[in-house]
Amino acid sequence: MAIVVLRIGHRPVRDMRITTHVGMTARALGADGMLLAADDPKIKESIDKVVRRWGGDFFVKIGVDWKKEIKQWKENGGMVVHLTMYGLNLPDAIGEIANRDLLIIVGAEKVPASLYNLADLNVAVGNQPHSEVAALALVLDHLQDGEELHGDFTGGERKIVPTRSGKRVKQVKPVASCG
Amino acid sequence: MAIVVLRIGHRPVRDMRITTHVGMTARALGADGMLLAADDPKIKESIDKVVRRWGGDFFVKIGVDWKKEIKQWKENGGMVVHLTMYGLNLPDAIGEIANRDLLIIVGAEKVPASLYNLADLNVAVGNQPHSEVAALALVLDHLQDGEELHGDFTGGERKIVPTRSGKRVKQVKPVASCG
Repeated sequence: MAIVVLRIGHRPVRDMRITTHVGMTARALGADGMLLAADDPKIKESIDKVVRRWGGDFFVKIGVDWKKEIKQWKENGGMVVHLTMYGLNLPDAIGEIANRDLLIIVGAEKVPASLYNLADLNVAVGNQPHSEVAALALVLDHLQDGEELHGDFTGGERKIVPTRSGKRVKQVKPVASCG
Repeated sequence: MAIVVLRIGHRPVRDMRITTHVGMTARALGADGMLLAADDPKIKESIDKVVRRWGGDFFVKIGVDWKKEIKQWKENGGMVVHLTMYGLNLPDAIGEIANRDLLIIVGAEKVPASLYNLADLNVAVGNQPHSEVAALALVLDHLQDGEELHGDFTGGERKIVPTRSGKRVKQVKPVASCG
């Protein structure tokens, strides 16, 4: 089961932090990568840095043509799901989207109206306005029955040792030098 | 079971959008209210507007003294949980925090070191860096076994009619006039 997030409607500067949260959430909660329909190298740099430091093989691709990506995903037999507060509520949609190769579209404030029809399914997380970051998190968690919280991120420089109070971090490999 | 979110480390302007996402997520996913340890009336205005439009009785209180709130919450027999990537992983913490009156602390980028000890428990959502919005969403969802996605928000002006594609909104009561 491949899960890739497609972020559209991103406006550089204004959406920088929210889109970074979308990408970091996608990575931490088991998605394979994020496609960004905007040319914003800073987003890619900051998430790539997290991957180097904390492991795993999450990818970020910027400047994609979102219509082309949707078309290609469908041609390859995958399902395209658009997260929106107007869609079917997650508990009613989960049976249809589980165990499929998913392209999950996460829009910013305004998304093109055509998207509602281009997606195979519009999915809401509670049918109330909240946050695309929260919506993505719950969809990823419900798809994987919470198993993603035990995800193993190998190859990074650091690992957290979970603790009731304070901070414990293990250096698992030397920080890469620039030489 | 009362659940209140305490947002600390908020910097006006810079954190405006993320803190708004925190508040909206708290409301949509069943928390009772948000305390904001900063004096930023815009956050309260925008969430209050969502409550008027979409229902429920979520409250926002700004300008709180976070140390005092923590102390008071404990004195009233409640539990204080701090969300941080360094804490106990959610699946290992859920048994301890379920069915308690919870003050959930959501910090911005930098939080005072003392917080790690003031909290009864530090809880992580996956022990990887991601987003306080995503972390809050998963904690609220796991605490309520997904039941919050069927939450009934009464008293608002509008309700969404969930649909596979497109947007359907029902006007359930007239928009309040200013007269």
